[in-house]
Amino acid sequence: MIHTPYLLFLGDAPDPLAAKVAQGIKDWRPDNAIGQFRMEGCKADMGLTDMTLAEAKEAGAKTLVIGVANRGGVISPAWKKVLVAALEEGFDLASGLHNLLRDEPDLVAVAEACGRTLHDVRVPSVDYPIATGVKRTGKRCLAVGTDCSVGKMYTALAMDAEMRERGMKATFRPTGQTGILITGDGVPLDAVVADFMAGAVEWLTPDNDPDHWDLIEGQGSLFHVSYSGVTMALVHGGQPDALILCHEPTREHMRGLPGYDLPSLATLRDTALQLASVANSACQVVGISVNTQHLSEEDAVAYLAQVEADMGLPAVDPFRQGAGRLVDALDAI
Amino acid sequence: MIHTPYLLFLGDAPDPLAAKVAQGIKDWRPDNAIGQFRMEGCKADMGLTDMTLAEAKEAGAKTLVIGVANRGGVISPAWKKVLVAALEEGFDLASGLHNLLRDEPDLVAVAEACGRTLHDVRVPSVDYPIATGVKRTGKRCLAVGTDCSVGKMYTALAMDAEMRERGMKATFRPTGQTGILITGDGVPLDAVVADFMAGAVEWLTPDNDPDHWDLIEGQGSLFHVSYSGVTMALVHGGQPDALILCHEPTREHMRGLPGYDLPSLATLRDTALQLASVANSACQVVGISVNTQHLSEEDAVAYLAQVEADMGLPAVDPFRQGAGRLVDALDAI
Repeated sequence: MIHTPYLLFLGDAPDPLAAKVAQGIKDWRPDNAIGQFRMEGCKADMGLTDMTLAEAKEAGAKTLVIGVANRGGVISPAWKKVLVAALEEGFDLASGLHNLLRDEPDLVAVAEACGRTLHDVRVPSVDYPIATGVKRTGKRCLAVGTDCSVGKMYTALAMDAEMRERGMKATFRPTGQTGILITGDGVPLDAVVADFMAGAVEWLTPDNDPDHWDLIEGQGSLFHVSYSGVTMALVHGGQPDALILCHEPTREHMRGLPGYDLPSLATLRDTALQLASVANSACQVVGISVNTQHLSEEDAVAYLAQVEADMGLPAVDPFRQGAGRLVDALDAI
Repeated sequence: MIHTPYLLFLGDAPDPLAAKVAQGIKDWRPDNAIGQFRMEGCKADMGLTDMTLAEAKEAGAKTLVIGVANRGGVISPAWKKVLVAALEEGFDLASGLHNLLRDEPDLVAVAEACGRTLHDVRVPSVDYPIATGVKRTGKRCLAVGTDCSVGKMYTALAMDAEMRERGMKATFRPTGQTGILITGDGVPLDAVVADFMAGAVEWLTPDNDPDHWDLIEGQGSLFHVSYSGVTMALVHGGQPDALILCHEPTREHMRGLPGYDLPSLATLRDTALQLASVANSACQVVGISVNTQHLSEEDAVAYLAQVEADMGLPAVDPFRQGAGRLVDALDAI
C-alpha cells in the first residue's frame, strides 16, 4: 500500500507520452496528485502546480511517484539526484520501472538511513495463497480483450469513475503497474509465480457487500499465446459475474505475433463465457468496449452501431462516449 | 541438467508411497538408477542394490537424488548427515522437496568447499523468454486432464517408453519436479513467473526433426480454477499437434475444490481443442487415457469400451493395457 497523496515526478520526459503513468494518476485519481516535479528539458506537463520537494512536503505529499519512463526503463544519474533528495526530504518512492529502485544501492542506503520505503510495484510484495475457488460475496466485473492493449484498464477505470459518481459501491482492482501506481494498491499479476496467480486474484477481490462491484483490470488475452495463462487466472480467480468484451478494430494481427489473427467478438464472447462459467455459472457478458481512436468520429459511430446490432449488447467507446451504458448494463444484473 | 546416473536416497521412508520419486526413476529411467541408499527403518525398497556412498561412487554414480518425501517435505537432521557425507564423497545432490537444499547453510558450505552442485528442481534455474508463438519444426503431444492428478505424467511417460521401444523419435518433456528428477532436465512450470510460462514451454520443446515427437507432461487442468493458467500456458506454449485426454472416473469433485464438478470428456475435448487451435490450427484430439485404478478389471474394461464408443477415439488405461493404441493414434497423424 503506497501512501498518498503523491508528488508526480516527470523528470526529463522527452514527450508527453513518456509520462503516461503520471497522466493516468492525474486523470483517474486527481486527489492523489498534489503537484508535479519537472527537470530541465521536461516535455510533459500534467497541468499541476510545479513544486520543489520542500513545497510538496509542506503541502502534504507522502510519496514521490516516478510517473515517467525513459528509454530502457532505467534510472538515470540525473534522476538519481532528485530521488536521493526526495528520500532525505522524507518522501517514500514508488516506481513501476524495470530498473528496480531496490537494485540501486545508493537509494537503498539512503532509504534505510531515512526510514523511508521504496515501492517497486512491478514486483509482488505479498505471499499470495493458492486459489480455493470458494464463492465470495459481492460482485465482480472483468474486462477481457480480443488482444492485449485494447483498452481493458481504461474501460475498468471509466466504469469505476462512473459508478462512484452515481453513488454505487465500486472499487477498481489493478493488476498491472500503472493501475497500482494510480490507486496505490493492487497485484502485479504478470510477475506472480504461476501456482499463485489465481490465488492472487482471489486475494485482490475479497468478500464484500452484496451490492459492491469490483472492477478488475484485465491482462493479456485468452487468444494471445504469450500471456493467455495470466488471463485464464483472472477469469477463474476473479469469479466474474459480468464480462466486458474489449476490442480495437484496426489491429491487423495479435500484438507482437505476426501471423496470429484476432478472434471475432463473438468467438471471444463464447470462449470467455464458457471458461468463466467454470468458476461462476451465473456469469454474463454484459457489454462491449471498443477503442476507436484510429477511426474517424463518423466511422466510429457506424462501427459501434454495427457491433451493437450484431452482438445484441451495448457497444461503446468509453473515451468518446463515457462508460454510462456499460454501467447501466452492470446495474441491470 | 542433472548428471546421471543416480544413487537413489530412500532415507527412512515410512512406507513405499513416500518413495514415489525413486519409484518413478526406477520404473521409467532404470539406467539412471545405479543403486539405492537406505537408512535404518526404511520401509521402501526399489529392488536395487543397496550401496554405501563409496560403493556407489565406485560404480559411477554422479548424483544422490532424494527419492523420498517425509511429512512436511523437510530435510531431517538424520538425512543431513548422509547428504553432507555424499557431498564430501563427490556427489551432487538433487531434490524436489519444498525445503530447498540451498536454504540449508551447512549443505551450501560443504557443496562450495567440495565444488559440488545442489539441484533444487522445484525452482527455475533458467531465465525463460516471453513466448513468441513462432511455429516450430517437429511434433508435440500434450496430455490434458479433466482434473489435476489424473495420470497425465504417467500417460506421457508410457507413450514415450512405447515410442522409443518402437524406434520412433520421442522425448518426454517434464514440467514438474518428479518428471525433472526422472529424466534429469525440464521446467518446473508451476514455479515460473506468470509472464514467462508459455515462453518456458516453448524453450522446453524447441525445433526438432520433422518426425520427432515431444511428449509434454501436462499440469493442472483447464477446468481447475487454482491452476488453469498453468495449463493454458502449456496449451499455447506447447503448440501441440496432438492432445490426449486424461480422466479418473471415480473422482467426485475437482481435486481440492468441493462443489466443483469435473467436466465431461466431451467438454474437455471441445474446450481444449478450441484453445489449442489458436496456436496450432492442425491440432487434433487423438486418444483418451483413463486411470482405472479404483475400478475392477471388469468394470474398467466396460468403462473404456463405453468411452471409446461415445467419443469415437481409442480409450485405454496405459497402466493396465499399455500405451500402444495411443501411440498408434499419434503415429497415424
